[in-house]
Amino acid sequence: MQSEEELFDFVKNGHKYYFPQLTLDCVIFGYHDQQLRILLSKYNNLDGWGVPGGFIKNDQTLKQAAGLILKERTSLDDIFLQQFHTFGDNEERLHNWHLKYFPKEFKDLFGEDNWLLKRNISVGYYALVEYSKVNLTPDVFSEGLDWHPINTLPTLLWDHGEMIEKALFTVRNQIYHQPIGINLLAEKFTLPEIHQLYETILNKKLDRRNFPNKLMALGILVKLDEKRNIGQHRAPFLYEFNKERYNEVLRNGDHIAFY
Amino acid sequence: MQSEEELFDFVKNGHKYYFPQLTLDCVIFGYHDQQLRILLSKYNNLDGWGVPGGFIKNDQTLKQAAGLILKERTSLDDIFLQQFHTFGDNEERLHNWHLKYFPKEFKDLFGEDNWLLKRNISVGYYALVEYSKVNLTPDVFSEGLDWHPINTLPTLLWDHGEMIEKALFTVRNQIYHQPIGINLLAEKFTLPEIHQLYETILNKKLDRRNFPNKLMALGILVKLDEKRNIGQHRAPFLYEFNKERYNEVLRNGDHIAFY
Repeated sequence: MQSEEELFDFVKNGHKYYFPQLTLDCVIFGYHDQQLRILLSKYNNLDGWGVPGGFIKNDQTLKQAAGLILKERTSLDDIFLQQFHTFGDNEERLHNWHLKYFPKEFKDLFGEDNWLLKRNISVGYYALVEYSKVNLTPDVFSEGLDWHPINTLPTLLWDHGEMIEKALFTVRNQIYHQPIGINLLAEKFTLPEIHQLYETILNKKLDRRNFPNKLMALGILVKLDEKRNIGQHRAPFLYEFNKERYNEVLRNGDHIAFY
Repeated sequence: MQSEEELFDFVKNGHKYYFPQLTLDCVIFGYHDQQLRILLSKYNNLDGWGVPGGFIKNDQTLKQAAGLILKERTSLDDIFLQQFHTFGDNEERLHNWHLKYFPKEFKDLFGEDNWLLKRNISVGYYALVEYSKVNLTPDVFSEGLDWHPINTLPTLLWDHGEMIEKALFTVRNQIYHQPIGINLLAEKFTLPEIHQLYETILNKKLDRRNFPNKLMALGILVKLDEKRNIGQHRAPFLYEFNKERYNEVLRNGDHIAFY
């Protein structure tokens, strides 16, 4: 959807091919250089940022729609996207809040009962990606798309602050039951590297001895007969994920207690 | 909604006062006598059972709508209802599956494009209640409403088997981060009673010494200067919840490791 005609048609007739009054928002966490960041769109005409979102086509499942939003903005495919919450409780969501954000001409052109101006509920997904691998492509409603460190976020629109907080809360809880790391670490990595990843996401120190033991007990790590030379006579062993076991724990959950 | 006219109006005009194509389903777990059960509706004209569900009014938040469904069926108020997943991925949900379940006359009367026949996505909530305290009231679409032990569920309609499985998975994971017990236990209870509750929900044995220590360390239990006489010279101490701390952990989560 790029040309003005296409955009006009979307606003006028979109309700015929998209699910009405339901949107999808993606909190995309990027990890790089021991830092956690979030992908935010600078929306046209609006004084603030929001997480990338979109609509669900009549013939798409929720998961397909979320995957497409992620792919369009980042060019990434096959990323683990996890639904975490559906947002329909914020008082503002009751009061056709989109009305506030469209220019007056919009209502003159399309009428006050246009489908885009109606009350809207949004399904939230999150993804974790290695952000140096991403090609950013803003959509037609945005003048920019960029990574922001989670500790210094800009002004957020709508209830997107609440969304980000809830996504982070969910990631931090899920890390106790489901592994993370694929897509975030190189194929082969050292124990200090995965340790650092978990500490960054949990935002707390984890015991240096107990942490790898827990992961090994879970069976998701394979120790390789290979070392990485990091200088000063230090050469830690390399590890990789046992993907079959990793996916099994991802699907079924397991209890991982970290201290 | 009880009379035939009201029902007719709902089918014909419901899309004017309800959110379109979005429903809400409640997996209600009942605990009593060391058993976990689920509340199921026997739907009219259909050969199977489903969890109680309903629609969202234009001016209701999701949480209000879920609370009302719970109250209408069980007469319970102020129960902790937790959203756990939104169901829109099952392939059947793409294909206007309601069509299959309405009699032919329905389409003749209301037309194939009636709002109730369109594709539908459903937000799932769960609740935990003490089931002996509940007054069951089936809704107008159901010929019955009853508790079923989680190990011997009857034939389930639509994707409601998946919903129940996902709800149980969520409860079992959340129990490691958020307390449960209020509404399920009497105001004063013994350590063996709360121990039994957690074991029933998790469906596994928990260490008899470690379990209460974890709860005490969390600060959600208060030991009373009172005992319950259970005969044969046994009189365990009674406990109650520190409600302020309980609600704090419920809101913010905390890490509770049980073995």
